[in-house]
Formats: sequence, structure tokens, C-alpha cells
Amino acid sequence: MEINNILFTGRLIKELGSLLDSSEALKGKSLRFIPENAVSMEDLEWADAYVAFQPTENFHFGNIKWIHSLGAGVDRYMALGKWPEDVLLTRTITSFGQKIGEYTLSYMLKDLQHHDTFDGQQRRGEWKMVAPRGLNEVKVVIFGTGEIGQEVARILAYFGVKVYGVSRSGVKKSHFRQVMPLEELDDTCLRDADYIINTLPLTAETERLFDADFFEKLNQAVFINVGRGGTVDHDALLAAMDSDSVKAAVLDVFEEEPLPVGSPLWSKPGVTITPHISAITTPKEAVACFLETLECVESGRKIRNAVDPGRGY
Amino acid sequence: MEINNILFTGRLIKELGSLLDSSEALKGKSLRFIPENAVSMEDLEWADAYVAFQPTENFHFGNIKWIHSLGAGVDRYMALGKWPEDVLLTRTITSFGQKIGEYTLSYMLKDLQHHDTFDGQQRRGEWKMVAPRGLNEVKVVIFGTGEIGQEVARILAYFGVKVYGVSRSGVKKSHFRQVMPLEELDDTCLRDADYIINTLPLTAETERLFDADFFEKLNQAVFINVGRGGTVDHDALLAAMDSDSVKAAVLDVFEEEPLPVGSPLWSKPGVTITPHISAITTPKEAVACFLETLECVESGRKIRNAVDPGRGY
Repeated sequence: MEINNILFTGRLIKELGSLLDSSEALKGKSLRFIPENAVSMEDLEWADAYVAFQPTENFHFGNIKWIHSLGAGVDRYMALGKWPEDVLLTRTITSFGQKIGEYTLSYMLKDLQHHDTFDGQQRRGEWKMVAPRGLNEVKVVIFGTGEIGQEVARILAYFGVKVYGVSRSGVKKSHFRQVMPLEELDDTCLRDADYIINTLPLTAETERLFDADFFEKLNQAVFINVGRGGTVDHDALLAAMDSDSVKAAVLDVFEEEPLPVGSPLWSKPGVTITPHISAITTPKEAVACFLETLECVESGRKIRNAVDPGRGY
Repeated sequence: MEINNILFTGRLIKELGSLLDSSEALKGKSLRFIPENAVSMEDLEWADAYVAFQPTENFHFGNIKWIHSLGAGVDRYMALGKWPEDVLLTRTITSFGQKIGEYTLSYMLKDLQHHDTFDGQQRRGEWKMVAPRGLNEVKVVIFGTGEIGQEVARILAYFGVKVYGVSRSGVKKSHFRQVMPLEELDDTCLRDADYIINTLPLTAETERLFDADFFEKLNQAVFINVGRGGTVDHDALLAAMDSDSVKAAVLDVFEEEPLPVGSPLWSKPGVTITPHISAITTPKEAVACFLETLECVESGRKIRNAVDPGRGY
């Protein structure tokens, strides 16, 4: 496939512009870097490649042959409706796994090492030993056993965490003691889980997967969401926290971002909100992945980060 | 060496008592479990083995042939004065390394993942992306390359942290990019360190090692002390925090414990105080190490946890 006119839009365009402007790999190609709300119909007609975190509001496929998502998730592209067969969709894959692994581990260790307890004691000038729990004493169930889920599993397993996985297929993957198919999820496996980590993409199958029925099966677990906000029924999550099936929640992703001002999640005790930073694409990483993908697209080499629009990831 | 009368005293005696009372390995031996302030001269004369975190206030060697420290540190025993040649001193070695590794990692990740920043934003209902720093972007200098220092190095190196060591000898150890002898410490190595982790025991050589001269060489580093409080000049540390050479301090050990109520450390912004919990000996672990050591003592097998009183560790 030959790519000549590339349209970049949305977050990061300034940084991408300065990194790509003098790029040898893009010699002879035309590039446009345009803010999201300034993209015109003409721009979309002009482009044969579209590079952004999400489609613009006025998005239409025009002559676009290739869309490259600057994020790992592509649900906003999928929401455009039936995917045209002749448009290639790729997504950014970088060191997301290690990043999300470190994010997740940081909040698990915060809990296991009693940071809040000791912080409270320090404010009161109180000295009272409370033994931290070791990572090798806990059990984690990771939803999603793709690139990110596997990397999180690798890091946790290194510390002796008992790591279980849940995926569509239930196919065994490295670092998981066991991978269960979503359809045949064993309730007892959830009952003694200390942490639930969601890394799943948002698809028709995963929408509101974490609902009242699901949370009811937990027993004082900590729920960590680094996948997509739309997979969670947040009202059910809040109710589960009141009924003690969920001890705490660490949420990095939300259906609407920024999280709306009026959301009860902001002030719920036990809920930690982070502004979608568990796997930030740095401009340098975005550029490296984009250029590598472009090279594959043009040379016809296998594209490992291509999305199957049928599956939605 | 034959051991018949074993005196247990201080913290954990209740738990040790219930775990050891029916122990096969101790059949035929006499055991006494006595609170620290109730140990009599007669008890000390009676015992040929003394098992505790520290000597009692009225401690004397009597007929004691073997002292087993329930902690990893033996400085309180060393403070008794010149060590009698015919008394064996051993210390507890368990999974301290992994424990201290998890403690240390938890506070590094808290810093790198901006927990406090996001906590503040959440309180204000504010959504502002700040990119976490990856562990593979930071440099750590670990003081002490013994069992604990090596375990901390192993864990950090797994994440790509650039780990340097400092020890008396400067002998190369696994997981460290380089180990420097204490005497020839390179100032430039300290200048670009993000974290300084102290795992050193308290000896004549390490007392007040971390003084004004030392802290002056740092540049916005975080100082983490999991070794001994007496290695640090805390006034100098506080001054270094004011002059920005030290960005924050995480302190688990203090010269006087509990940390006295009047200490300015309690309320200094940027100082985190934990009550000596980074490597708590659980009763089960204490018993396992004690029984293993006893077996070595009685059978004449090599005792890997024997202390060299000349070195003090």
C-alpha cells in the first residue's frame, strides 16, 4: 500500500510535528498536523492516512486507506459503525505492558504495605507496628490475557503472586497459573481473589461486564481498571463497595473522560481516581510505533499491531 | 555444641512458645519463655542459649554459649562491649530481602507514579494528566551489598532500574552495574542518583555515615533508610531537605524506637515515617530460622547466619 498524504490530529500533534518534520522516512510525503476541531472535510478527503487517538466529530472515511490509533484502545474508532473492508486499522503498541504493570503494582503495594495506615499514624505521631503483606501471599485475577495482561502477569508472577487469567478463549498463556474462558468463569476463583485487574478492551462482549452480578461474587477484593471505563457498571461498583464485596477501587479509565465533575466516584472513600495515565504514549514512543507500522504498511510486511475490526481489538 | 536450656525473651515469646512447645526438634530440652523485664539473674545463669531481639537490661553472659538474634540486626548485642570468644552469635535471616525489596519498591513507585499528586487532584475534583516515570528511567545507589542489598538490587534490576552498590570491599555482586568501595565513593555517582537506599548495619564504621557532607553531594534524591537509624545524622538530613539536595526521605529505622514524640521528623513535609516494619520477622519465620540454626549448632554443620563480632554483622 502506498501512503502519500498523512493527516495527524488531536493530542500530541505539536510534539509529533516537531519529531516527524525532518524525518527521513517521511521524505516525499505530505503531512498535515491539524487540531481536532479544525479538521475540515477537505482534509479528510485529501488524506490517505489518518493518525490520531480518536476520530474527529466530523469524521468520514473519504479516501482514507489506513487509520493508525495513537492509543492502544480503538473502541472510539469501532463506534463509527460497520468497518469498511478496505481500510486498515492499526493501534499503538509500545511498552504499555510494563507501564501498566508498574501502575498496577504501585497501587497493590500501596495497599499491601499499608501506606494510608502509616500516613495516618504519622499525622497523629503514633508508632504502631502493622506487618505488611507480601506479594507472595496474594491472588490476582487478570481479565484479558493479551499483550498488556501478559506483561502485568509476568511482573506479578516474578514476585510470587498467584496469577489467574480470564480471556475469551481460555487459551493458556505464560505467567498465568490458569486461564479461564469468560463464559465458564469459576465463582470460587473470584471469591478468594485479593485483586481483580481489568485490561480488557471495550467491545460488545465486554460492555458492562463488571456488573452487580459480577461484584457480588467478590469478597473484599480490590478492583483495578486499566482497560476501558465502559466495561464497568459504576453504580454497581459503588453499591458493591457499600456491601463490602469490593474493598477498594483504583480507576484509571472512564466512560466519559475527563470524569464529569458530578460523578460520585470522585469523593467515594476507597476509590482512587487517576486521569488515564497508566499507559501514556510518549511522543517519542508514538513516533517509533507509527514509523514502524508505516514501514510495514508500505512494504507489505506482517503488521503485528493490526486490529481485527470483527473482534474489535 | 550441645544445647539444653534455652531462654526466650522479649517480643514474640508468646507466639514462639505456642509454635515451639510441641516441637519434635526440641524434645528433651528445657525451654523458658519469659518477658523481658522479668528475666532474672538465675534465668541467665541457667541458660546455655539466649534467643531474643536484644539483650535484657540486666543481661550478663552467665553460662550462655549461644545467642540467637530474632532480628537481622545485632547492633544491640554488639553494644554489650567486647564479645567473649567462646559465645556464638547468630542472627535471623529469612526473606528479609524480598520484604525490604517490596517496601522500598512501594515507596519508589509511590513517587514515580505521582500518588500524592493524583490524590490531591482527586480531592479537588481535578483531571490533569501527568506522565508517571518508568522504573527503567531511574538510578539507585544501594549502600550495603549483603543479603538484603542484593535482594533489593535483584528486584529493581528486573525492572531495568540502573542499580549501583556501595560496600566496604567494593567487591562485584550480581544485579549491580558496579559496586564501589565506601572509601572511594565517586561523587558523580551520587549526583545523578534518584534514590539512595541504605541497608547497612550499624557499626563503628557506619555510624553517622550519612552526614551533612554526604547529603550535600545529592541532587534532589530520595533517601530511603531500611538499615539502622544510627547511620544517619538526622539534623543534617533535615537541613539537606531544606536546601533541596534531598527531595524526600522514607525512614523505617531510628536511633531511638519508637521515634520520640518530640522528633521534628514526624511533621517534616516530605518525610515518611514507618514503625520499623520493612522486614518484620513473623513468628513462623523466626521459628524456622531458629530451628535450622540450632540444628547446625548441634551438628557442627556450617552456620551461614553466624555473626563475626569483629565486623559487627
